[in-house]
Amino acid sequence: MGLHADPRPIGVFDSGVGGLTVLAELRRRLPAESTIYLGDNARAPYGPRPADEVRAYTLESVAWLLAQDVKLLVLACNTATSQALPLVRQVASVPVLGVVRPGAVAAAASTRAGHVGVIATAGTVASGAYAAAVGEADPTLAVTQLACPELVPMVEAGQLSGPIAEGAVRGYLGQLFAVDGEIDTLLLGCTHYPLLRPLIEQVAGPRVAVVDSAFTTALAAEDLLDALGGRTPHTGPGANRIVTTGDVATFTAVAGTVFGAALPSVERAAVTAD
Amino acid sequence: MGLHADPRPIGVFDSGVGGLTVLAELRRRLPAESTIYLGDNARAPYGPRPADEVRAYTLESVAWLLAQDVKLLVLACNTATSQALPLVRQVASVPVLGVVRPGAVAAAASTRAGHVGVIATAGTVASGAYAAAVGEADPTLAVTQLACPELVPMVEAGQLSGPIAEGAVRGYLGQLFAVDGEIDTLLLGCTHYPLLRPLIEQVAGPRVAVVDSAFTTALAAEDLLDALGGRTPHTGPGANRIVTTGDVATFTAVAGTVFGAALPSVERAAVTAD
Repeated sequence: MGLHADPRPIGVFDSGVGGLTVLAELRRRLPAESTIYLGDNARAPYGPRPADEVRAYTLESVAWLLAQDVKLLVLACNTATSQALPLVRQVASVPVLGVVRPGAVAAAASTRAGHVGVIATAGTVASGAYAAAVGEADPTLAVTQLACPELVPMVEAGQLSGPIAEGAVRGYLGQLFAVDGEIDTLLLGCTHYPLLRPLIEQVAGPRVAVVDSAFTTALAAEDLLDALGGRTPHTGPGANRIVTTGDVATFTAVAGTVFGAALPSVERAAVTAD
Repeated sequence: MGLHADPRPIGVFDSGVGGLTVLAELRRRLPAESTIYLGDNARAPYGPRPADEVRAYTLESVAWLLAQDVKLLVLACNTATSQALPLVRQVASVPVLGVVRPGAVAAAASTRAGHVGVIATAGTVASGAYAAAVGEADPTLAVTQLACPELVPMVEAGQLSGPIAEGAVRGYLGQLFAVDGEIDTLLLGCTHYPLLRPLIEQVAGPRVAVVDSAFTTALAAEDLLDALGGRTPHTGPGANRIVTTGDVATFTAVAGTVFGAALPSVERAAVTAD
């Protein structure tokens, strides 16, 4: 474990644009680090795909990022984390972080009542990854999950506030709290949801703490680099490459709606041989 | 960064017996891992010593643990973490975790009101390490610290409940909440305090979440090993060596009061050349 300052970039992978929330937190906390983001938009969303397909696509995408000589790999994708993290860790030659565990640990630290709610896509809910990770952090906690299929399309359409967004969030949280009224910590188990965080906090009310994976995963990446002594020796702002396997114009439109003017020029790359 | 299953032990350092709470959590969460604990009791407590002395003693102790071929080093000592962590990371050939950051991150995740209380020894409070770490996790949080000099001697005397212990805890928490009545998260900034956790939780009441460094540091060690793929390949229970630089009988008496029958036979070692 070479404990030397390391100028190489951090690789961030998502099936699409959602992982940009993790990238944004990483860059906010570690502005000197260079980053390479890969969105496998040509094959997104991963959620509905069978597990072996998710694993194969994730491994191809990760191989592409490793070929860019990254020092740390962040799976900023709940589906890839819940279905492929152990496999990626077996093949990767650098440390690998997923998004599930950091959020689960923060939720376990946050709840007073011992009741945690998780909202996520249908695929992530079905995987049970968050419930398992919260239980691993503290087996005494009660976890209630709810799939919120309308939220990702809503975020990608730029609807982060207003009556439609509020109606959707109010409907989902109403369902969740009807199942367990003692929930006092709400874990956002999808990388798109941090963009709805102000609205979700407003609807959930002050009694409920909202924990998001983007924030907690960025903290975990910072901790890992510090434990390894592997921060960049450079002090200026790091480079920020964003790459998609899909259509650049479509990616830029969706990502731009969501991230505004800070988005750099997006590149296209193929991660498969064909 | 050699990403291979790694059977070597985890090294845990404290100036005295307090870090045994971190060791106990580590062993509870990672029972297959071997551990070596070093307490520098011959020179404890570190709290009242000047910073350059703390750094020199910590480096000597760490060098002894590194010579035992540990794969990961945990500074389970608030004084050593707050005064020597960056230096230890410069010299160590393995990843190094301190106790301050994991607790601070969990406290930042936990507070709803944005008001965090920290109780610790006078030395840790004076270092400001927890206030800085909480602020680094989230600069919007208000942090109030209180030195509680009576608690370590009380724990070492085995007084974890009863009227004397309750009176001391009630007195300190009363002072802390008098300074900031909005505190809803209490960070135990001393490795002895987790043993008082049931009492502290009872006195603080259900509105206040108690966060302890032993629990959060053990989670951080688990995360680090997982990110590096560095868990032991063995599946049976790991070995547990406990070593003190001081008097074995005294260490065993204090540690036994605190940790009961689970304490293995304690060894003595010198970390200095003389």
